[in-house]
Amino acid sequence: MKKSIGILGGMGPLATADLFQKIVSLTDAARDSDHIRVYIDSNAAIPDRTAAILHGGADPLPAMTDSLRKLEACGADCVIMPCNTAHYFLPRLQERTTLPFLSMLEATARICHARFPGKTAAVLATQGTLAAGLYQQALASEQVPFLIPGGSEQEALMRVIYQGVKAGQPPESYRADMALVLDGLTAQGADYFILGCTELPLAVSLLGLSIPAVDPTTELAKAAIRFCGYPVKMADGL
Amino acid sequence: MKKSIGILGGMGPLATADLFQKIVSLTDAARDSDHIRVYIDSNAAIPDRTAAILHGGADPLPAMTDSLRKLEACGADCVIMPCNTAHYFLPRLQERTTLPFLSMLEATARICHARFPGKTAAVLATQGTLAAGLYQQALASEQVPFLIPGGSEQEALMRVIYQGVKAGQPPESYRADMALVLDGLTAQGADYFILGCTELPLAVSLLGLSIPAVDPTTELAKAAIRFCGYPVKMADGL
Repeated sequence: MKKSIGILGGMGPLATADLFQKIVSLTDAARDSDHIRVYIDSNAAIPDRTAAILHGGADPLPAMTDSLRKLEACGADCVIMPCNTAHYFLPRLQERTTLPFLSMLEATARICHARFPGKTAAVLATQGTLAAGLYQQALASEQVPFLIPGGSEQEALMRVIYQGVKAGQPPESYRADMALVLDGLTAQGADYFILGCTELPLAVSLLGLSIPAVDPTTELAKAAIRFCGYPVKMADGL
Repeated sequence: MKKSIGILGGMGPLATADLFQKIVSLTDAARDSDHIRVYIDSNAAIPDRTAAILHGGADPLPAMTDSLRKLEACGADCVIMPCNTAHYFLPRLQERTTLPFLSMLEATARICHARFPGKTAAVLATQGTLAAGLYQQALASEQVPFLIPGGSEQEALMRVIYQGVKAGQPPESYRADMALVLDGLTAQGADYFILGCTELPLAVSLLGLSIPAVDPTTELAKAAIRFCGYPVKMADGL
């Protein structure tokens, strides 16, 4: 019996659409009925995760739990979240359900190890994700070398995420900030980039950039397809 | 109190992702929390609608009703379906629920009338949609002149939809068939095209074609955003 996916989404909505589109596109299917059943709650009312972690902002856990209950009621067999920062709350959500959560961070760390052995990753993520140590832990457990952006690069990255992609602004408005981040980290020794906020694969795609990168949204999509017992359509075999 | 959307999807899955992406992109929002709550059941197991209408294929109504019940349980305030042909079953689904269905065909006919007054539309749709007279009725009630593809053009169009987009094949594999359809209908007097199967806006976009067209997926997204009480971000004011 093949399994279905529940997407605890809305964090943000465009990243949720991106994850869903990647699940469909990466499933090796010849007709509609070869695809996975996917339930989505794009719950835009979930309070900002970074604000909650760093500044005592509204707790997102009640709204996330509400979405979890809806996905359970639909009959989802696993839960995935297209928001890296939201994974800070994953252990507490996991305590509240018997449905398995698949971790975007673990899927990403595994592919970093396999695709760029011994190379240094630059972790592009929100301040909430970095302050919580989410990628630091996941990468360390796969022995992936990494570096973290400093002050001015991290500020530029937050502008790309919040004032650029989440605000629906045109890509040209954040091209300079993105270049500042990528150039600065390359100069510091980064060999490739982890696009560790779900707005960043969108930003890179909209800007038409070609950079060595791991896209956690893609890796989560592939992990979920495999979990459900479906074949992944892929070029690189990883 | 703003409303939420339920998407009865999976017909096909990529078209469902396209509708969701268009809802997000067309909502005039400055941050995650300005977006609409959207529930999706991408139920790829719904039997093919054209096969059911034309050839006595499996009845899709039980699987569609199952998805409808899940969207009701989530708390959706309206239901939309990113499949033109599925609208053949809309009256019977509407009898089974108090949730309002918003019709993709009516939204399309209204915009045809407003944007191309007096001009002739070519209806590009599946044989199931055409045989059921779905667009013929919707366009007639808005006094929109239209023409329907003949045999060889309709066969080419079905190849684009089923052997091209739904089969996940590269756009070059259906470029010649799409050109045959567009050139043939233009020669017969079409002024613009209704992309009346949800795979066709995808095909036109993937082929990079620039043609005068109405995209029912976009019009349905806009109708749903307005129904829910949110502002539409748009260029043409329609």
